[in-house]
Amino acid sequence: MMDYKKIDAGDVEYLVSVLGKDRVFTGEEINDDFSHDEMGGISRTPDVLVDVLTTEEVSKIMKYAYDQRIPVVARGSGTGLVGASVPVYGGIMINMSKMNRILEIDEENLTLTLEPGVLLMEISDFVEEHDLFYPPDPGEKSATIAGNINTNAGGMRAVKYGVTRDYVRGLEVVLPNGEILEVGGKVVKNSSGYSIKDLICGSEGTLGIVTKAILKLLPLPKKAISLLIPFPSLDMAISTVPKIVKSKAAPTAIEFMQREVILAAEEYLGKKFPDNSSDAYLLLTFDGNSREEIEKAYEKVADICLKEGAVDVFIVDTDERKDSVWSARGAFLEAVKASTTDMDECDVVVPRNKIAEFIKFTHELQSRFHVRIRSFGHAGDGNLHVYVLKDALSEEAWKKKLAEVFEAMYSKSRELSGLVSGEHGIGFAKKVYMLEQYSQEYVELMKNIKLAFDSKNILNPGKIFQ
Amino acid sequence: MMDYKKIDAGDVEYLVSVLGKDRVFTGEEINDDFSHDEMGGISRTPDVLVDVLTTEEVSKIMKYAYDQRIPVVARGSGTGLVGASVPVYGGIMINMSKMNRILEIDEENLTLTLEPGVLLMEISDFVEEHDLFYPPDPGEKSATIAGNINTNAGGMRAVKYGVTRDYVRGLEVVLPNGEILEVGGKVVKNSSGYSIKDLICGSEGTLGIVTKAILKLLPLPKKAISLLIPFPSLDMAISTVPKIVKSKAAPTAIEFMQREVILAAEEYLGKKFPDNSSDAYLLLTFDGNSREEIEKAYEKVADICLKEGAVDVFIVDTDERKDSVWSARGAFLEAVKASTTDMDECDVVVPRNKIAEFIKFTHELQSRFHVRIRSFGHAGDGNLHVYVLKDALSEEAWKKKLAEVFEAMYSKSRELSGLVSGEHGIGFAKKVYMLEQYSQEYVELMKNIKLAFDSKNILNPGKIFQ
Repeated sequence: MMDYKKIDAGDVEYLVSVLGKDRVFTGEEINDDFSHDEMGGISRTPDVLVDVLTTEEVSKIMKYAYDQRIPVVARGSGTGLVGASVPVYGGIMINMSKMNRILEIDEENLTLTLEPGVLLMEISDFVEEHDLFYPPDPGEKSATIAGNINTNAGGMRAVKYGVTRDYVRGLEVVLPNGEILEVGGKVVKNSSGYSIKDLICGSEGTLGIVTKAILKLLPLPKKAISLLIPFPSLDMAISTVPKIVKSKAAPTAIEFMQREVILAAEEYLGKKFPDNSSDAYLLLTFDGNSREEIEKAYEKVADICLKEGAVDVFIVDTDERKDSVWSARGAFLEAVKASTTDMDECDVVVPRNKIAEFIKFTHELQSRFHVRIRSFGHAGDGNLHVYVLKDALSEEAWKKKLAEVFEAMYSKSRELSGLVSGEHGIGFAKKVYMLEQYSQEYVELMKNIKLAFDSKNILNPGKIFQ
Repeated sequence: MMDYKKIDAGDVEYLVSVLGKDRVFTGEEINDDFSHDEMGGISRTPDVLVDVLTTEEVSKIMKYAYDQRIPVVARGSGTGLVGASVPVYGGIMINMSKMNRILEIDEENLTLTLEPGVLLMEISDFVEEHDLFYPPDPGEKSATIAGNINTNAGGMRAVKYGVTRDYVRGLEVVLPNGEILEVGGKVVKNSSGYSIKDLICGSEGTLGIVTKAILKLLPLPKKAISLLIPFPSLDMAISTVPKIVKSKAAPTAIEFMQREVILAAEEYLGKKFPDNSSDAYLLLTFDGNSREEIEKAYEKVADICLKEGAVDVFIVDTDERKDSVWSARGAFLEAVKASTTDMDECDVVVPRNKIAEFIKFTHELQSRFHVRIRSFGHAGDGNLHVYVLKDALSEEAWKKKLAEVFEAMYSKSRELSGLVSGEHGIGFAKKVYMLEQYSQEYVELMKNIKLAFDSKNILNPGKIFQ
């Protein structure tokens, strides 16, 4: 299956004939950034890198690559964490990030039509100016929308608003053989054949290249207020979450954090967090259209938390406090990264009443393996981000230890009916753990689906299940 | 592809060996109900009908059928409207409706685990007793949950809460070759490989047989109030909808109805509607946790409607009024059906700002083709239910006229960027219209996906695209 044609001068010539010399790069012209993502533990430089501006260009390149059997990887901002956009078989990398226009905001149908390379931060800025709202809110705001679609990115607001898939109404996709397909549209409901749109969402660039997306928007809530709630222990904090979820208060986000991560963020940012005296915290957000409505909701939740043993309840409503809390939350990943020499991340998702058990288990692993482990994440939806830190370990010792710790964590996740990835995907780095969880038939079925789209297996090979 | 083994005595003997004599039916023992659904325009009796009680039984039957190349159709309540569960190639029909136990309500993770044959009305009764809420609300409450999953049923609350797909967290599925697969789970987020769960949703029984489902629940809103709003014309009513949707008032449902359908319902039920003096109505529902919150929302919407020309605003809050409005709304389909000799239905979905244009077009068709056309539907999500009535036409004239009217309607829908089905599916009856809309590559891709699941094409053949 993996017997690909090696790129030669003729291939480069073809690409130049389609795109012009200025948008085709080889050898030393390719910036090293394109050889890796943010943390996939794998790198390889593509044989050719091309910048595209139109769907037709993507289509022509795919037709050619399909004919010639050349592997192709589409890439956005490269902010992935599992190596999904690394061209492990070389070949052509298509840089989608210059197809980055917002094409239409439709205020009657509440949709936004845009090109794949638009950044998450650009979307929120743009739609909020129109008093509209794109709810998915992953931490990495410089990711592209197509990257988010391909990982089915989740983010902090999933507990109330759902994930990226829930906001994708339609897609234009270039298939591996170069055909252009439109699936879905501006319509709200759709039972017209297999939901190819939903299959593309989360397929990590292996089934087609997204060249346009139609997103669902909501009216922008008028107000949002956060609560920072310290607890004496993580256990007490986490066990409060199901009670909050059931309370009809509908928080937008329920994040958990522990003191050690807060301290790291304080050091990294050189800025104080409102409180760092407790072991564990819940950070909740509420949104709505009136202050009274939000107050009613958060008062109910504050009562629940205090009854369950919370030490205090800080209302995060001044600009200063908002900034200090959310800039810290936004910096957790970077802060943990800065505190060590290297690290890797586990993005398991477990049923939300199993979070505490999982986190306690990672604490045991710290002692058992003599390694630092840090975590934070989405208590409201059971999606954890657990980081194993290299610190002073040798490269060899680190690889070995990391494999052992990951093996233990993913095995624990299976025991708790969790899954390998809540929102970062499988890509290259998490294949082995997914393959341990899914039956042979399951994997076989995914391979068959892949072949249904890509009979020559040229689009982003070596990912998810192969 | 369609060269199937004909059922013989040996096959029946095998089925009896798995299920016992009492649960295997042939010939005259098969009730005629199993030969058709509610309105697919097609009927055929299966060669064998079997009742199953366990996943293992389904698995054994599928393994056998796969080996022998016998077509199989799984059937729930038979409330479909497009012939999706009719065994057009004969073979085995598996009646799933006795696998109808609710297995678990998990109040910490807000999930409901249940067998495929549980009825929609049983779900709402059960979860509401636990102060929880399953939002999808199709009109047909005697449909099974697996039927709803297989059509990705929508219903009236889609404008606020989404469709069935959005509430399916996990599935147990028996594949065509008899393998049992679990996809998803109780987890809230999932980026762990291709979303086979989302592909099964809406696949109309062609990819696998759902034997268990894990549904997402929400806390039950404490109150709901409806508004009935008469308008001088349908146009005025419908053009108000985008303004309502943008208003942040978040109605749960926005239905439209016209006087003629209301009159039919009054006659059918022998019961008065609160008002029938206007040409067109919007019926809106608001839910929430306090009367003030709901009042604020509906007052805003009432103001918008009056500004846009509404004649009046009736608040539907007494039990009596609720009953008269919602029993009428619930009886529309039956009332229209009772008013004629035969009818067929078009379930297009268009962008919601195109509804008025589509409905006006159906009025033109009434005059052009001298045929009665009635419609009602989901103004909030652009999903229309348009009924063409046979009345006194001969069978032959009716078939011809229906084909012409449908051709005109589906062609109009395409012009408006609509899709063939919003929630009833393609099944057998709407294949031709879907095939007119989708490109050859699109259809080819669906066929390839089908083969990825079912290389022998034995599960519900002759549906959607073939």
